[in-house]
Amino acid sequence: MILELADIRIHPGRSSEFDAAIKRGVETVISKAKGFRGYKVNKGVENPDRYLLMILWDTLENHTVDFRESQAFQQWRAIVGSYFAGAPQVEHFTLLAKSTGPAAA
Amino acid sequence: MILELADIRIHPGRSSEFDAAIKRGVETVISKAKGFRGYKVNKGVENPDRYLLMILWDTLENHTVDFRESQAFQQWRAIVGSYFAGAPQVEHFTLLAKSTGPAAA
Repeated sequence: MILELADIRIHPGRSSEFDAAIKRGVETVISKAKGFRGYKVNKGVENPDRYLLMILWDTLENHTVDFRESQAFQQWRAIVGSYFAGAPQVEHFTLLAKSTGPAAA
Repeated sequence: MILELADIRIHPGRSSEFDAAIKRGVETVISKAKGFRGYKVNKGVENPDRYLLMILWDTLENHTVDFRESQAFQQWRAIVGSYFAGAPQVEHFTLLAKSTGPAAA
């Protein structure tokens, strides 16, 4: 599995609207994509206009090819794109180590 | 609960040594700290010198005060600090939304 981390900055003052939009976008669009395995959205404490969208995909290509080249990507951007203060910074990661148990990060 | 995200860049070519050092540092030092609830370490695909250390704490102060002002912080930095190419970028986050099930990101 591959972790996609999208580091998102939105326009100030639109945080409560974006909270709803990002959830709707993931749940109605991204979660239906091929290879989607799960997600988390985290919101900044020091900077409430910063969000971390973490998505697990079966393979890197499920995100970079299958999703990004699909109509679904356009649908996702139509829901959330107007809130973005700039292009999200997106990279991919593999899991190196984790703690066990239900509270694992 | 609070998520600490430490975005770490290390000196090129030291990745396999650092893989072991970061695990040892978390497991022998940070995991003993007050308020520690779990962790993950992720390693970059596009950039193998980039690591994401994600730690869950009961409260923000468990990290920013209790841990950072403790001897344990010095012990942690003694294990991993020499690998860092610069100061890690650290911010804190709250969970806004997540998928359910065992594959959740």
